[in-house]
Amino acid sequence: MKNVLHAKCVICGRTYDAAPNLTNCACGGILDIVYDYDSIKSSLSKADLAARQEYTIWRYRELLPVEAGTELPPLRVGWSPLYQADRLAGQLGIQRLYIKDDGINPTASLKDRASAMAVAKAREAGAEVIACSSTGNAASSLAGNAAAAGLKTYIFVPSRAPKGKVAQLMAFGATVISVQGSYEDTFELSKAAISRWGWYNRNAAINPYLSEGKKTVGLEIMEQLHWVVPDYIAISVGDGCTIAGLWKGLKDLYAIGFIDRLPRLISAQAEGCCPLNRAIETGEAWRPMEENTLADSIAVGVPRNADKALLAIRESNGLTVNVSDQEIMDAQKLLGRTCGVFGEPAGVTGTAGLKKLCEQGKIPASATAVSVVTGNGLKDVANAIASCGEPVSIPNDMDQLLKAFAERGITVE
Amino acid sequence: MKNVLHAKCVICGRTYDAAPNLTNCACGGILDIVYDYDSIKSSLSKADLAARQEYTIWRYRELLPVEAGTELPPLRVGWSPLYQADRLAGQLGIQRLYIKDDGINPTASLKDRASAMAVAKAREAGAEVIACSSTGNAASSLAGNAAAAGLKTYIFVPSRAPKGKVAQLMAFGATVISVQGSYEDTFELSKAAISRWGWYNRNAAINPYLSEGKKTVGLEIMEQLHWVVPDYIAISVGDGCTIAGLWKGLKDLYAIGFIDRLPRLISAQAEGCCPLNRAIETGEAWRPMEENTLADSIAVGVPRNADKALLAIRESNGLTVNVSDQEIMDAQKLLGRTCGVFGEPAGVTGTAGLKKLCEQGKIPASATAVSVVTGNGLKDVANAIASCGEPVSIPNDMDQLLKAFAERGITVE
Repeated sequence: MKNVLHAKCVICGRTYDAAPNLTNCACGGILDIVYDYDSIKSSLSKADLAARQEYTIWRYRELLPVEAGTELPPLRVGWSPLYQADRLAGQLGIQRLYIKDDGINPTASLKDRASAMAVAKAREAGAEVIACSSTGNAASSLAGNAAAAGLKTYIFVPSRAPKGKVAQLMAFGATVISVQGSYEDTFELSKAAISRWGWYNRNAAINPYLSEGKKTVGLEIMEQLHWVVPDYIAISVGDGCTIAGLWKGLKDLYAIGFIDRLPRLISAQAEGCCPLNRAIETGEAWRPMEENTLADSIAVGVPRNADKALLAIRESNGLTVNVSDQEIMDAQKLLGRTCGVFGEPAGVTGTAGLKKLCEQGKIPASATAVSVVTGNGLKDVANAIASCGEPVSIPNDMDQLLKAFAERGITVE
Repeated sequence: MKNVLHAKCVICGRTYDAAPNLTNCACGGILDIVYDYDSIKSSLSKADLAARQEYTIWRYRELLPVEAGTELPPLRVGWSPLYQADRLAGQLGIQRLYIKDDGINPTASLKDRASAMAVAKAREAGAEVIACSSTGNAASSLAGNAAAAGLKTYIFVPSRAPKGKVAQLMAFGATVISVQGSYEDTFELSKAAISRWGWYNRNAAINPYLSEGKKTVGLEIMEQLHWVVPDYIAISVGDGCTIAGLWKGLKDLYAIGFIDRLPRLISAQAEGCCPLNRAIETGEAWRPMEENTLADSIAVGVPRNADKALLAIRESNGLTVNVSDQEIMDAQKLLGRTCGVFGEPAGVTGTAGLKKLCEQGKIPASATAVSVVTGNGLKDVANAIASCGEPVSIPNDMDQLLKAFAERGITVE
């Protein structure tokens, strides 16, 4: 890959050739893919991008770690819509707000960005089997992207994974192991199995290429904003890989001169599981926490990518915010009603966090913010119905309709 | 609208000015929007389209019935991916197969195409409230598209609607009336309420503009195939509006000379509810049927758009095929495993029908076919899990993993 120099450990600085089956550094640290920005600068301009009609993550080929001849995976991943949300901005009391709806990806979450990259790199490695552990979305996205490419998958999910995600896995034909325990237990069993059978490893904090897929969300946001940098980008944080990937994309654009400043990240976690935010807030090392939140995708008590995530939040002079499950479900309704965007609980946690910071007066009224919705609400219908309520239920009878409206105080216009 | 001549009744031929709040003809017949194809021919070329970077249904503005100044609704609808499915084509024994995944629309079904149009026309009519009855997808798509546009919705669904669709409705803030009865009961109550309160009517066989939104699926398929016409397009049929819309789009392209022949439609219905296919097969008038299928979106015993649908199937020299619930669920797995596309039961019924026709030797091996997946499998998770099965469930223990694999005959690679 002529655009990539090497992979470099974020802990000890040791470098490695960018082979397709890279895992962690010998020291245990996570690797980061290092690009030749001078070369990229000379081969890619904003005008080049504007002229491209490939609206997927692969429109950014110069900034992605794939060989020129690699067959790209079939599913159409990325270029999710960025909606200008004026009514919601008004309610939050800020100047401008954009909602990036990543729930419209092929398997309905941002994780498709990483899984598409995993499939591309697995092909480079000559692998025919890919495995991962996941709270659910990385799992279903890997299963879908691999199925489309004709690769086999072994997938480990915690038994709490919502039914929507499990249904996807089964439909995509993955071999699914539901682990009775925490995400940490799930991760450990997948690690042992991957080591035993030598499968291609799609665990996000192990395989350094996955962040490179995820960073495309940042590349897209900036191109969709015509390279005008927002003040804040809010996103939910679990394992830490997504916020780290987002940050990498923004820094790439800064390095090649496409943007002239960097936004501040807003790291939103659940109150019941916020080990990374707690580390930032206390200034101490992160420590494990219980996984007490209904936002299953970010219920990660032992975040696997703590190093890159903490670095990203700190480098961006970021804000942390922890929200209750009630605040998360309120944000789900708020996004649905004002924007027509239905996000899963973890998907809307960034918006919940942004709202809370606005209410606390920590975001100036002049601010422009972006909130990334990382997954579709259809992934977890049980929690949505518990929060949003059930409909009026009546027979085909106008009198009963009138009575039901009156009882519920519904004034018909 | 300078591209539209008028609306014309498909039964009696009476014409009407194309006002935004058109409903049925005085005779009860359904109206069809008639375009000035000569004018469109002179204002739109294939090269014009190829140069456009608006990848939504609105890229076809010259072929859509909206005023030049109409504010278009915010959600990004259309331009769903068309995947070349070589492995599945091989399994079906045909030359080439494409899967159009309409489940990636903003509310996860093809119905977003019609609902976006409904919102645009409601705005032209100055309406602030829209109402419809629906088996579920038209409902959730209307709720989402209207919420994004700041319009209020009253929505009637049969009580059997799957939880995913109901969850969307509630999250989008619609006033939802769950009618204890059939789709016909639901339709009748919505009709009475719309008549009583004067809401803008998004019932698909009443409002003639909705087919015009749906036809964009046909426009896209042809543009994505670079105007090379496939031999067959398979799609599931319930109310009849979707197949009629698809056909309208294809005929539009033929009328303006963008394609030089028309494909044959494959009308796929459920064995337990196939009133339209039965009419074609027997040559008799259609008669109501029970709604005996788990494919809820096409469980329509009294199809509201029978006239346009039957005309479309006949004009295209189409094929009919009725599939069992088992064949539908088998198609869901087949699409998931070979294409990474997860469709809801009604969404995969077109593929199930195509497969059955191939097995019956009714499709030549040299054929090129397109199958439209009309909705996302996440809409109806309960049926997917019932069909695809549950995962292996074990604690974090390698010995138990080995035992579970052995018990299930899973040979690890």
